[in-house]
Amino acid sequence: MQKKAVILFSGGLDSTTCLAIAESEGYECYALSFEYGQKHKSELDAAKQIAQFMKVKKHAIVSLGLGSLSGSALTDEKMDVMDYAGTGDIPTTYVPARNTVFLSVALGWAEVIGAFDIFIGANDVDYSGYPDCRPEYLHAFESVANLATKAGIEGTRYVIHAPLLRLTKREIIQRGMKLGVDYAATLSCYRADSEGRACGKCDSCTYRRKGFIEAGVADPTRYL
Amino acid sequence: MQKKAVILFSGGLDSTTCLAIAESEGYECYALSFEYGQKHKSELDAAKQIAQFMKVKKHAIVSLGLGSLSGSALTDEKMDVMDYAGTGDIPTTYVPARNTVFLSVALGWAEVIGAFDIFIGANDVDYSGYPDCRPEYLHAFESVANLATKAGIEGTRYVIHAPLLRLTKREIIQRGMKLGVDYAATLSCYRADSEGRACGKCDSCTYRRKGFIEAGVADPTRYL
Repeated sequence: MQKKAVILFSGGLDSTTCLAIAESEGYECYALSFEYGQKHKSELDAAKQIAQFMKVKKHAIVSLGLGSLSGSALTDEKMDVMDYAGTGDIPTTYVPARNTVFLSVALGWAEVIGAFDIFIGANDVDYSGYPDCRPEYLHAFESVANLATKAGIEGTRYVIHAPLLRLTKREIIQRGMKLGVDYAATLSCYRADSEGRACGKCDSCTYRRKGFIEAGVADPTRYL
Repeated sequence: MQKKAVILFSGGLDSTTCLAIAESEGYECYALSFEYGQKHKSELDAAKQIAQFMKVKKHAIVSLGLGSLSGSALTDEKMDVMDYAGTGDIPTTYVPARNTVFLSVALGWAEVIGAFDIFIGANDVDYSGYPDCRPEYLHAFESVANLATKAGIEGTRYVIHAPLLRLTKREIIQRGMKLGVDYAATLSCYRADSEGRACGKCDSCTYRRKGFIEAGVADPTRYL
């Protein structure tokens, strides 16, 4: 039987590459996206479209009512997403405990469908300073997964895969190109418009644009 | 300044006692409930009412669209909640990764409001066999919390409090009575009706009823 994997999947450059890697490793892929009050909802349209033509087994979009708790520029109507500043500070686009919430839901789904592999496109190089993209964090979550579940008690091990963890944006793009990823369909911008056009100026756009230049690949992003 | 705490709060006997303990320890309490597709939604009515008269600082109800992923009798319309069987098996009312999801959201809220203490009414004695109620699980989640967050990086420690962990239902009730908890308002049943009346037969009702008997306290539960 083909091994199943749950892939955290936003429809952005990183998670789409991550999905392509999971497929190339032979997993039957269950893609998981979230509607969590993000202002850039057109990323969900991108995710749906990509999930369809990458032939995932199932694409689930789980809604999370986190808006009322959050203090992030990605969900709070009163905060603006800033242009890239390059200061190394944790940016205002940080959503509290986001990866922990996302991985938890992925773990729940994995348990239901009998998957023991969870893929996340976390990156520790061009990582914008998010604490929950570090390897020690991912290892700690793996321990939680194995203690939280019936399968963990019975001895089966959950594995959190973060295949992009040590790659630069250039390397991620090069890896994806080899796997046939169509980056024109991906959307990384934190303040894209409803048509899915990117601002070109936020952190996410800045890293992405630089990645295409360094990879020597024509940038297929549609900008505003 | 008064220390803040986030309390996972379902409106049941355990979490209400847990809230009373947090209040008695001097915390300013932020109670967190979830609408996660549970069939026993009247527990949210109980939670709202209790939160109000226990004067929590804020009561948030976060909706989680987990229904489509779940394989639990608590959320799946096609499964029945079973009567108590006493077999020691993990029951069908187990919601995959539930405490991990709930603690993750609690962590996100804690980060936003500047709380470093999270209370959960997990219990390892009358615990119905849930793996995510064990102390080793809670310790592992504490590590995740401290690695996942800006505060953790900066050296502040999150603490997961599980004051009921080692208590029997009898001891929980005795503790709550001393703190003035009004158990008539709490609802523990997995298949309560819309009026908040308990079935008296599910696992949760069975442990609760037994607890009142052993504590020598008149059972204030309204049964069907």
